[in-house]
Amino acid sequence: MTSLGFGVLGAGRIGRLHARNLSGAVDRARVVGVMDAIPEAAEVVAAASDGAYATQDAEALIKDEQIDCVLIASPTTLHAEQIVLAARAGKAIFCEMPVAFTLPETIEAMEVVEETGVPFQIGFNRRFDPGIAAVAEAIHSGGLGEVEMFRSQSGDHSPPPLDYVATSGGIYLDSAIHDIDVARFIVGEVERVTALGRVLIEPGMEEHGDVDTSVLTLEFASGALGIIQNSRRTAYGHDVRVEVHAAAGKVVSEEERDTQAWTYTREGIRGDYRSDFLERFKQAYIRELQSFVDAVLEGRKPSPGPRDAVESLRVAIAATRSLHEKRPVRLVEVA
Amino acid sequence: MTSLGFGVLGAGRIGRLHARNLSGAVDRARVVGVMDAIPEAAEVVAAASDGAYATQDAEALIKDEQIDCVLIASPTTLHAEQIVLAARAGKAIFCEMPVAFTLPETIEAMEVVEETGVPFQIGFNRRFDPGIAAVAEAIHSGGLGEVEMFRSQSGDHSPPPLDYVATSGGIYLDSAIHDIDVARFIVGEVERVTALGRVLIEPGMEEHGDVDTSVLTLEFASGALGIIQNSRRTAYGHDVRVEVHAAAGKVVSEEERDTQAWTYTREGIRGDYRSDFLERFKQAYIRELQSFVDAVLEGRKPSPGPRDAVESLRVAIAATRSLHEKRPVRLVEVA
Amino acid sequence: MTSLGFGVLGAGRIGRLHARNLSGAVDRARVVGVMDAIPEAAEVVAAASDGAYATQDAEALIKDEQIDCVLIASPTTLHAEQIVLAARAGKAIFCEMPVAFTLPETIEAMEVVEETGVPFQIGFNRRFDPGIAAVAEAIHSGGLGEVEMFRSQSGDHSPPPLDYVATSGGIYLDSAIHDIDVARFIVGEVERVTALGRVLIEPGMEEHGDVDTSVLTLEFASGALGIIQNSRRTAYGHDVRVEVHAAAGKVVSEEERDTQAWTYTREGIRGDYRSDFLERFKQAYIRELQSFVDAVLEGRKPSPGPRDAVESLRVAIAATRSLHEKRPVRLVEVA
Amino acid sequence: MTSLGFGVLGAGRIGRLHARNLSGAVDRARVVGVMDAIPEAAEVVAAASDGAYATQDAEALIKDEQIDCVLIASPTTLHAEQIVLAARAGKAIFCEMPVAFTLPETIEAMEVVEETGVPFQIGFNRRFDPGIAAVAEAIHSGGLGEVEMFRSQSGDHSPPPLDYVATSGGIYLDSAIHDIDVARFIVGEVERVTALGRVLIEPGMEEHGDVDTSVLTLEFASGALGIIQNSRRTAYGHDVRVEVHAAAGKVVSEEERDTQAWTYTREGIRGDYRSDFLERFKQAYIRELQSFVDAVLEGRKPSPGPRDAVESLRVAIAATRSLHEKRPVRLVEVA
Repeated sequence: MTSLGFGVLGAGRIGRLHARNLSGAVDRARVVGVMDAIPEAAEVVAAASDGAYATQDAEALIKDEQIDCVLIASPTTLHAEQIVLAARAGKAIFCEMPVAFTLPETIEAMEVVEETGVPFQIGFNRRFDPGIAAVAEAIHSGGLGEVEMFRSQSGDHSPPPLDYVATSGGIYLDSAIHDIDVARFIVGEVERVTALGRVLIEPGMEEHGDVDTSVLTLEFASGALGIIQNSRRTAYGHDVRVEVHAAAGKVVSEEERDTQAWTYTREGIRGDYRSDFLERFKQAYIRELQSFVDAVLEGRKPSPGPRDAVESLRVAIAATRSLHEKRPVRLVEVA
Repeated sequence: MTSLGFGVLGAGRIGRLHARNLSGAVDRARVVGVMDAIPEAAEVVAAASDGAYATQDAEALIKDEQIDCVLIASPTTLHAEQIVLAARAGKAIFCEMPVAFTLPETIEAMEVVEETGVPFQIGFNRRFDPGIAAVAEAIHSGGLGEVEMFRSQSGDHSPPPLDYVATSGGIYLDSAIHDIDVARFIVGEVERVTALGRVLIEPGMEEHGDVDTSVLTLEFASGALGIIQNSRRTAYGHDVRVEVHAAAGKVVSEEERDTQAWTYTREGIRGDYRSDFLERFKQAYIRELQSFVDAVLEGRKPSPGPRDAVESLRVAIAATRSLHEKRPVRLVEVA
Repeated sequence: MTSLGFGVLGAGRIGRLHARNLSGAVDRARVVGVMDAIPEAAEVVAAASDGAYATQDAEALIKDEQIDCVLIASPTTLHAEQIVLAARAGKAIFCEMPVAFTLPETIEAMEVVEETGVPFQIGFNRRFDPGIAAVAEAIHSGGLGEVEMFRSQSGDHSPPPLDYVATSGGIYLDSAIHDIDVARFIVGEVERVTALGRVLIEPGMEEHGDVDTSVLTLEFASGALGIIQNSRRTAYGHDVRVEVHAAAGKVVSEEERDTQAWTYTREGIRGDYRSDFLERFKQAYIRELQSFVDAVLEGRKPSPGPRDAVESLRVAIAATRSLHEKRPVRLVEVA
Repeated sequence: MTSLGFGVLGAGRIGRLHARNLSGAVDRARVVGVMDAIPEAAEVVAAASDGAYATQDAEALIKDEQIDCVLIASPTTLHAEQIVLAARAGKAIFCEMPVAFTLPETIEAMEVVEETGVPFQIGFNRRFDPGIAAVAEAIHSGGLGEVEMFRSQSGDHSPPPLDYVATSGGIYLDSAIHDIDVARFIVGEVERVTALGRVLIEPGMEEHGDVDTSVLTLEFASGALGIIQNSRRTAYGHDVRVEVHAAAGKVVSEEERDTQAWTYTREGIRGDYRSDFLERFKQAYIRELQSFVDAVLEGRKPSPGPRDAVESLRVAIAATRSLHEKRPVRLVEVA
């Protein structure tokens, strides 16, 4: 087998991006079919993915024999059942995060994956950001000794619409979960979290019990401490940066700026900044799929896998509980 | 009066540095006398300060009519009584931080200062670091709107000796108090703090009830959130950096590296890093004294003043209590 | 027509790269056939370009009706005749630089292109490097006023093999021509050049009348001055940087480093450097083809075109003559 | 002797700066007297140099027994005779560059210095710029192998007034001589130069036979090549940068920006730039005097010395001749 056939479920913004990467930038992969509840959406994406067909029938697509892998980019509420369907059909699965908004649903779906033994990767794409991957490698290589402090910050260009907020699961499940997964990836498991949140940007957040500005502290099982800062409005663009302080030094992911030229005038020095997260994580989106395709073709387990899908969610749920109950929450409390 | 005569109390590392700056880099200032309990120490510093005399008698120095200003760089336990003596003698006072390890002693000394009306400046030198001052100016100018998140990190090159730790007052009074003062300077008063500390570097810290690694979260009266990270070992050098996220953007103090040249070889790109805090804050030490001298000569109140001496200490004490009692501490609890 | 079919002539390193980009990263393009004198080379590239056929017959490929565009990546000595064949067959042409090693051959081929009216683009890919393109845009926008000085530097990771040197046309036709084309692109036409060259790296250069280290000064028709520095060995990697000084300020292309993370240790600060020119100009290679495809599909003239193929070569030949004759050479002398 | 007494000749901008540094920032030095033809100028500088006297009599000052060193910051036309007077009086001499506008006068004065054996330093302050000094050290340490290309650029914030231009000696003696001296310091002696100059900024330059924009190429005795770029108007500030390409890598002096904070907003990233050369070379001015004082007190020959005064001037004169005669000029032609 020289190339994997993908069925893409969901032709929204992320599904479209993945389909495009699969038909262009990712080696040994091609799109066979695209499913969306809105026929036009599926057709547009299929047409752009040389020769793929469009459908509204998820189950038929999953079961299509031409399809080796199912890429799930549908609404979160459909993820778990599509995972189960695909696993039972013996298909390799790449699923956008999260698997579900609750831990039991997530665990249940992951158990089916484990039972069926199909390859499964969860879309924590930041692990594949070149900068963050380089930080992880520097730490995992051991050359800097034990981690003492971890810090990640994420900023969205502007707050999401309130109707999105209503169904997003809140800032920790929707946004900080990416920083949490990176923390787990680089430092290891978390024991306790303490969340501090504020509504400083979008007053409408209040009625959804959500915040737009957050500081989350992490206590890792290793003894290290961590900080995650999130803001729903970093006016200058999508700002993500990871910094790890270890016994023998620190390592910092380089800022992903858009600056291709610096201009010097009487007003000082000026460069541009990248404002869009799809652009910010362009490489990460391609690299995560390439890693999945390579693992499947070479018979290795893809990573991050089912355990990461569960444990990063568990930390995000603990953070949400900490925010609402205004107290530190231990991970063992969250089941 | 074209130049202020200084009496320097304490000829240790910091007293020596201040004396040197007063006789060289600071305009309109000169050293008249240097006091230290160790005669040789006073003599060495006096000799290096063109024409100053050495003495072991603090009170005589304070009362010397040639002296306009007293610079207190003696052990912290002597600060309060020397402040009172100097204030009663009508001298302008520059005092290294902190005034005292307890709030009542600090408040009492500051009340004498207020009563006598002498100019008083507390040695929170970071406010005068060019990078941090530029961040403060960017925020205070209003152009970036309201502050939403504040972050400061401080790292010492290597942990202090344990006998120093024993009398240091702990990481918050000894080290984080500088970050705290910067937080207050830039964002305003703090309402509540939560400290997380660890002993990851120097096990001997435990017996002194101290930690070497800390994450402190701040809740400001304005609603903004803050983070202060402290480590007693940033192996590469003295690392201090401030980052403020506001409604319309962020502003970050430039890293103070020692790199004067970048070398490109097969091994990659390499630059040097500054390892010493005296070197790191060289400009800040000069600028804080210049600001004091200018204020005294021009009849303005020096800043940071008595209120800052009290309030930054209050936050540091609250942080220490939070560490020991493992709970958030409100500032109003600390009196 | 929604997508252009390409015939790729030459399956060497650059042909392979272009074929890969056409089948992956470039929109609205696909590879139909790949020709190379070595059957295996053509087959490998064809196999990697979903569904393309391999052939050894350039003429048949050029004339294939499925083919809209011919991409010429064959040895330079074949470029001119393949351009003529393709132009007479009415195909759009993308040709790697240079068209030929001599000006008359180049002019002759370009005349056929002009007569037949087929779209033609010459592969000066640096115009599409994001950094260099941003510099050009800053200057062309007019905001910085008239250009006064131009500077470009190019460094190869290591000197080419001597048998390559023998047929390369020399450092100005092989390497500096890229800097020259950028100079013309940003500043305009050149009036006179003065070359200084040295053999400092690879003594074998001498017998080919070539140098490995060069400083070339340019006098532009506008009155501006320019410098191009070339080295066949920049030990740390492929280093290309453009800096333009104008009346109201300067603009500098950002260095293309590979550094995704900076590490701080007792040894200082360290980052990685990119060593390969295919990697250095990865974006430029994709963007130049996309620009060609878009121009052809939208009926615009591609750029850089025939005039650039001629004029940039003319400057490179003048530089070579200046090197050999040890005197400034005016462009009007070169015909 | 613990401190050197200085007589400062000339109380213009540079004399004032040196006097201030001697009385403040430089260790083991003090100002004893200040001479200027304008009494008020001498008085202002003397008054600011704790206890120095003012005079209009250069000879009396030079011969004053309290004076160990003469610092010559008078108009260039007076340098040579003041050097001779000071040398005959047995005083150590620090002289602003150049010694004279002609080579014979310079050589004659330097011969008196050599005969009398007095310590002599010429004010090529860039050798003491931390960045340039670091580049020199990296090269002189030998770790990067032989130098292959040297590049220096200097830009003034804005062109000097035309009456200054009239007596300045032209761009090479007035400005490029600093870059030339750095080139000699780092790479070694120069064999031949070729100047290209333009009047692009200030048309009035023409009548003085001067240019405001220049590219100067250097051929070093070692075989290395060099470039010096000069502009009389770098609108954003005083821009000086040195870059040396050697066998095993390159080393680049860090840009001296004034940026203490970077601001990120919707408009991009912004930092400040330093516009004044006194500020740009603040450290260099202090360090060159400290180096002179230390050498004199420790009985070492100061550097750069008489040979540098002669040879850097010789290159500048060769460059001027090359500009006017429009041909390469060998150094051996200039006597």
